[in-house]
Amino acid sequence: MGKYIYFFGGGEAEGNAGMKNELGGKGANLAEMSNLGIAVPPGFTITTEVCACYMKSNGKYPSGLREEVKSALARVEKVTGSKFGHPDNPLLFSIRSGARQSMPGMMETVLNIGLTEKTLPGLIRKSSNERFVYDAYRRLITMYSDVVMEKATGTEPAEGEGIRQQLEREMEKMKRQRGAKDDTQLDTNNLKRLCQIFKEKVKAVLGKEFPDDPFEQLWGGIGAVFKSWNGRRAISYRRIENIPAEWGTAVNVQTMVFGNMGSGSATGVAFTRNPATGERQFYGEFLVNAQGEDVVAGIRTPQSLNRATKTRTSEHLPSLEEIMPDLYRQLDDIRGKLEAHYRDMQDIEFTIQEGKLYMLQTRTGKRNGAAAVRMAVDMCEEANISREEALLRVRPEQLDELLHPMINPKEEASAVKLAEGLPAGPGGAQGQIVFTADDAESWTAEGKKVILVRNETSPEDVHGMHAAQAILTATGGMTSHAALVARGWGKCCIVGCTDLNIDVANRQLKVNGEVLKEGDRISLNGTRGTVYKGSLPLLPADPQRNLYYKVLMQWADEARTLGVRTNADTPSDARMARDFGAEGIGLCRTEHMFFGPDRIMAMREMILSDTEEGRRRALDKLLPYQKKDFIGIFEVMEGLPVTIRTLDPPLHEFLPRDEVSQKEMAKEMGISLDAIKVKVNALHEINPMLGHRGCRLGVTYPEITRMQARAIMEAACELIKKGVRVYPEIMIPLIGTREELSNQKKIVVEVAEEVMKKYGVRVNYSVGTMIEIPRASITANEIAEVAEFFSFGTNDLTQMTFGFSRDDAGKFLPDYLENRILPQDPFQTIDERGVGELVALGIKRGRSTRPKLKVGICGEHGGDPRSIEFCHRVGMDYVSCSPYRVPIARLAAARGKLLEKSE
Amino acid sequence: MGKYIYFFGGGEAEGNAGMKNELGGKGANLAEMSNLGIAVPPGFTITTEVCACYMKSNGKYPSGLREEVKSALARVEKVTGSKFGHPDNPLLFSIRSGARQSMPGMMETVLNIGLTEKTLPGLIRKSSNERFVYDAYRRLITMYSDVVMEKATGTEPAEGEGIRQQLEREMEKMKRQRGAKDDTQLDTNNLKRLCQIFKEKVKAVLGKEFPDDPFEQLWGGIGAVFKSWNGRRAISYRRIENIPAEWGTAVNVQTMVFGNMGSGSATGVAFTRNPATGERQFYGEFLVNAQGEDVVAGIRTPQSLNRATKTRTSEHLPSLEEIMPDLYRQLDDIRGKLEAHYRDMQDIEFTIQEGKLYMLQTRTGKRNGAAAVRMAVDMCEEANISREEALLRVRPEQLDELLHPMINPKEEASAVKLAEGLPAGPGGAQGQIVFTADDAESWTAEGKKVILVRNETSPEDVHGMHAAQAILTATGGMTSHAALVARGWGKCCIVGCTDLNIDVANRQLKVNGEVLKEGDRISLNGTRGTVYKGSLPLLPADPQRNLYYKVLMQWADEARTLGVRTNADTPSDARMARDFGAEGIGLCRTEHMFFGPDRIMAMREMILSDTEEGRRRALDKLLPYQKKDFIGIFEVMEGLPVTIRTLDPPLHEFLPRDEVSQKEMAKEMGISLDAIKVKVNALHEINPMLGHRGCRLGVTYPEITRMQARAIMEAACELIKKGVRVYPEIMIPLIGTREELSNQKKIVVEVAEEVMKKYGVRVNYSVGTMIEIPRASITANEIAEVAEFFSFGTNDLTQMTFGFSRDDAGKFLPDYLENRILPQDPFQTIDERGVGELVALGIKRGRSTRPKLKVGICGEHGGDPRSIEFCHRVGMDYVSCSPYRVPIARLAAARGKLLEKSE
Repeated sequence: MGKYIYFFGGGEAEGNAGMKNELGGKGANLAEMSNLGIAVPPGFTITTEVCACYMKSNGKYPSGLREEVKSALARVEKVTGSKFGHPDNPLLFSIRSGARQSMPGMMETVLNIGLTEKTLPGLIRKSSNERFVYDAYRRLITMYSDVVMEKATGTEPAEGEGIRQQLEREMEKMKRQRGAKDDTQLDTNNLKRLCQIFKEKVKAVLGKEFPDDPFEQLWGGIGAVFKSWNGRRAISYRRIENIPAEWGTAVNVQTMVFGNMGSGSATGVAFTRNPATGERQFYGEFLVNAQGEDVVAGIRTPQSLNRATKTRTSEHLPSLEEIMPDLYRQLDDIRGKLEAHYRDMQDIEFTIQEGKLYMLQTRTGKRNGAAAVRMAVDMCEEANISREEALLRVRPEQLDELLHPMINPKEEASAVKLAEGLPAGPGGAQGQIVFTADDAESWTAEGKKVILVRNETSPEDVHGMHAAQAILTATGGMTSHAALVARGWGKCCIVGCTDLNIDVANRQLKVNGEVLKEGDRISLNGTRGTVYKGSLPLLPADPQRNLYYKVLMQWADEARTLGVRTNADTPSDARMARDFGAEGIGLCRTEHMFFGPDRIMAMREMILSDTEEGRRRALDKLLPYQKKDFIGIFEVMEGLPVTIRTLDPPLHEFLPRDEVSQKEMAKEMGISLDAIKVKVNALHEINPMLGHRGCRLGVTYPEITRMQARAIMEAACELIKKGVRVYPEIMIPLIGTREELSNQKKIVVEVAEEVMKKYGVRVNYSVGTMIEIPRASITANEIAEVAEFFSFGTNDLTQMTFGFSRDDAGKFLPDYLENRILPQDPFQTIDERGVGELVALGIKRGRSTRPKLKVGICGEHGGDPRSIEFCHRVGMDYVSCSPYRVPIARLAAARGKLLEKSE
Repeated sequence: MGKYIYFFGGGEAEGNAGMKNELGGKGANLAEMSNLGIAVPPGFTITTEVCACYMKSNGKYPSGLREEVKSALARVEKVTGSKFGHPDNPLLFSIRSGARQSMPGMMETVLNIGLTEKTLPGLIRKSSNERFVYDAYRRLITMYSDVVMEKATGTEPAEGEGIRQQLEREMEKMKRQRGAKDDTQLDTNNLKRLCQIFKEKVKAVLGKEFPDDPFEQLWGGIGAVFKSWNGRRAISYRRIENIPAEWGTAVNVQTMVFGNMGSGSATGVAFTRNPATGERQFYGEFLVNAQGEDVVAGIRTPQSLNRATKTRTSEHLPSLEEIMPDLYRQLDDIRGKLEAHYRDMQDIEFTIQEGKLYMLQTRTGKRNGAAAVRMAVDMCEEANISREEALLRVRPEQLDELLHPMINPKEEASAVKLAEGLPAGPGGAQGQIVFTADDAESWTAEGKKVILVRNETSPEDVHGMHAAQAILTATGGMTSHAALVARGWGKCCIVGCTDLNIDVANRQLKVNGEVLKEGDRISLNGTRGTVYKGSLPLLPADPQRNLYYKVLMQWADEARTLGVRTNADTPSDARMARDFGAEGIGLCRTEHMFFGPDRIMAMREMILSDTEEGRRRALDKLLPYQKKDFIGIFEVMEGLPVTIRTLDPPLHEFLPRDEVSQKEMAKEMGISLDAIKVKVNALHEINPMLGHRGCRLGVTYPEITRMQARAIMEAACELIKKGVRVYPEIMIPLIGTREELSNQKKIVVEVAEEVMKKYGVRVNYSVGTMIEIPRASITANEIAEVAEFFSFGTNDLTQMTFGFSRDDAGKFLPDYLENRILPQDPFQTIDERGVGELVALGIKRGRSTRPKLKVGICGEHGGDPRSIEFCHRVGMDYVSCSPYRVPIARLAAARGKLLEKSE
């Protein structure tokens, strides 16, 4: 182990912005700002390595740490000219977490460390503001007893109120007694008394005195922050964000500055550009005479930084530009300096203490998808960043927001408006109201769409926010917890909807005279901030109207080498995907085509036949339907390849399971119920996933393959005669051996030749296979001798490579993710070390016998950005994904190429 | 293409025994014998290449063939001094198939080719035997019309009588009219008339004249033999024996010699050693005045070659040694010459034509397992062959017969004897009577054990013979079709059981006054040839009493490097396997231990508990049982390693499915039926094979692993304290990731340490894993960092690598084997190219991180000889198989080593 402590402040620092792994994001940037000469309250950062060590040794610090803290403390005292614990000139600290990657609100913070009976008088003298000092003291007691004395010791009650809530109730009581509406209306004596009450309450509830030793407070705070790395909230957040547990957090111990020392003090947060739109305007909120937590918590309505960005809720309040123009100019200068230095939009925190501006934090700002796209394009055109950087600046997932549906404006015009709030996350959403995060999660698990409605959200609500369609809060501004988190996920969100009157206990809310109960439906326009009654229809997104998006996607297309196709079974899906930029169809499933009411009967007749002739008769009825389907799709995809998969699911999926439907079927088909039951039983499978399906159906019932090949080829021939360019690729599923494919290809080619002869045209068609059985990857060299293309079906390949049934894995997969036995759900992001190895092997072996083999992917991984980068790396020709994922795939493909280049 | 025709005869030949691929076994050996100076009727062989060409070109011969035939013919004419088709001195030919590997009776033969209206008088003059000539002529017409005119043209009727049966009925009619009991009682005029009738019948039934041109007959015969390679029987035999369709057959055109030219003529088949016991005695059968087909068909009772080998059925008949002592001596000389030359037991065919001995065939003789073992050991001790050769001479599967059960002799003594026949295949068997091969197959498919009872078997019956437990025929000798085929498979078989009176039409048989119907039970002692009424209990085999076996197995153990363990879950299985030579337990399943009536309740209580505490309480009840089980097994396996697998099957397997049993369970457990139903539903899985089982149970319910580890370790500790040497290997199933194994290993090690501390002893234990998930093989390098041993579970690995559910594959696997999409059932013999690749990869990667990793296999492939050779090749340390397969595995392991050395 090297150095544990890095000092910063006074225009110099031991660390820098490149040391995020050791110092965490916050610590590294405090160091960097200090080096840049920006005023930062002095302090020091304890490294993440200490956290790792602390966790491994069950709460012991590495030897030598205490000495390093001591000397860092001395250096801070020297720079600030005050002394920790000193009765005359006391130094106070904040203690904050700071991981490599920002985890907003997930870990603990303690402020005002160093306030004791002994230092109170000194601070009062120094600040000449007794009220302020006792206010700081009561905050310290609240935070410390909650974070250090209760949570960090694991004595937090599972149900009922924790110490923080009990103390807050004491304060409410005091306010009621004194007739105070607002915290600020409590006077010095009130607060002094409150501190007394608080300390007694802490002793009574927790059985321990609130510590009056500054060093005890300091080490208690440091330990509590480290412990909070393994708190429930942090763990749950890490799982969602895929942050490794090994990273650990750093701890920043920093001189306190106070935005609540009176009307010359203030505190705020700001973005160097608008994080919701990407516009190049300085955007932020602040409160006069407040501490930072007051802004974030959304208790008071924050003021805008400048005139230009006032919102509906802040338009009546003066901006910083208006009340402290000098300080605003200083801040605006720092804004420019930081953006130029970091070459990206910054999210900054500042405090003004009695007219002096301090920067408490800078970090690359979160932004929603639309803003990310606009900033990337703008910054590139401002020549700050290159095109490659611009492309890498937008996470492909962020495009999802631009592709999000919107409430249909026509319906919206006449909808019943319930309330308005701040548009914190764009897009439209509709769903049923729930009032708790747990309900949001459980209702969603039941397949319902819900909107989480809260007074304000806290990190405790993260799982429910993630599950919900959208989030609606009564309080909070654009930088509140709800807004930050929703923006990170590109989720529809409205905050500060002050008209809501929420009664969680009775699971209802009142809004402008209406009463809505749990389960009632509402709709949100997150782009405008409007809440509507009922379910309004959503319109698909139309990103084409967004110029920035169009520019960026064009750059992406120029950068990428990986093709992007779509999975589409209908002309309308195909149309939409083509509009989104799909370069062909990578997977057209044919089984859905058999479920139409007029078709299912013929399908069932086929299944119930015991002779080839009977099956053929039934298939003849299906042929015209299939042909028509293919004509529709080929027309839409004119000039582009269309990969059509032959029948895949086991036949029992086409028969009804319950007796009622079976009776109906018997009646309609004029056969006995018994005959149907016999067939259903005969087709029953223990493990249908590994049963009689895919090409195995085609081997036992070649007439099915024959009919499908005929439908495809006849559709193609008819269109080609009309001058339409059609490129069908016929794909045989579930191939495990070369011989299976030879068997099926022979049938397809025979039919194709016959049909082309009949129509007198040639079709440029090919026959290939899904690679979804592990054996197919292993013997890909043999299979490629027959297959003209491969398409990796990584859904099934993942099931078989892991031995996980997707239908059943819900019983253990949560435990696996919880225990980090799996780093992520392998059905969402490809498991590179296992399944990915098989994919890479399959491509290598396939191309060993057919060097120009065309290779794609059509599992759900084809729409997952990280998996798409993988597909690029292993040399695929294209990915295929659902229509809505096509733009995301285009950007991810570009990203794959750029990351490869930069290696 | 090279040469199509190879001449042999007159003490020389163009081919030799090494040319089996080109000339087939028969042709190559005829050439070899000719080169050895043994009298062989001259002729020529048309190569297998011509067959391949003939099949590919849909029945066309390669150009140049006719010329080559012409010149070979001229050469034969020169050696024999007679001329094909010549009216005065006609040459007659036999036309016989001959593939690389013997396929007895599976293809066609035509004799007496060259007899026409024009050549009949010349042959009569030459033989001075008009009756013989017309007998030969009626045989030609029968065979030719059947084989060439009907079968080869595909005009054989699907049902009802073919031309052969219709001609045979004409002959019976004639015999009845003339009062002839026997064919030989028909005189010249009768036969002459019969030939006339035959020709008319052929014309009437087939619409074509019987050809009267010798060359038309010759080419017709050659074509028919080639076509018979793709006949139904041949295809079905090839599938069973794994003979590739591409090989094709050669055709042997050979001068006819006649064993039916009077009392100085005879024909016979013989083995240079006894093929049923391996004894070094000349063993065979012959008939005076007969053609070869008469011996094989079993129509007349054959005579023994010598006094020493007379059987119950031939003891009243004179032997060849007695009636033709000179010729017997000549034959015995040839026997010695051939065995010395070929260094193996030979199966020979000979014909004596008017006092002159001709050899028609020699080939390595089929033998049953006991004979194979004895011959190998004897020949090695006679210094004919080396030990390595001796080991390679016995196919491991053949040992199966020595390991076959026998009828319990105690029960046999008092059993109701129905009849006696010839002991053609040793061992005991019991089952239900069926009378047709199709029934044998379909009843067996339903899970019944059947004995196929026939008058005589024909190649058409092969599929039923394969399916049946045993075969019983009324006619035929030790070299009859039934005997040969059964011996090849080591199947229990009794032939020539002349007391049986079989009525297939009414599905019953009469035997010594008893009437037995289809489905009635009988038992066979194939070693003695006795048939009993009812089901007699079978005793396990006791090969230890067979000295030859013991010697051979000792040699095998000295030769092999691959270890052999057993799969055993009980002390008695373990005991038996140890007696069979098992060197440890490779798989002890623990789930069967939970099914005892006293245990299942605790198991169910565990499953129904919703809390860890409840589960732990129930598991505490199971602990003493498990511990007792392990103590029993450890004691039996003292000094040897015992691999114990933790719980593997999904929990729903322990709950009853039907409501009746559920009600019972509810009552016994004192809970509601609903509670049980809820749990059954909750545990239901769509694909249980890929569901919540194996280590996934241990991850979600660590208390199960904990209990099992405790039971194992406590059992081990208690025994070690008593001085018993115990080596437990704890095996975690269904591992797919390193993290799963770490999770489970941690639990096991914790418990183990605790238990050892409690008992104050150290146990030499290890923790390893099954490799049965494709991902485990792929990431074996990671897993081996944690696993101390690997055991390949190739049953599941095959299921997942192919995506085949063993439970459901019955719906398509038969089609796959039929269409040769798969060369064999991959659950029986390991699929080397697919699953085998994963195994090899797993071993390589595993040893890359843990060079001394112990590797075994415990799937059913561990008892399959070809798979065992594979296991040796890929460097496994041991195979593990069911107790009865242990000796087979030992020999197969030796074979693997020897084959590797010889490469």
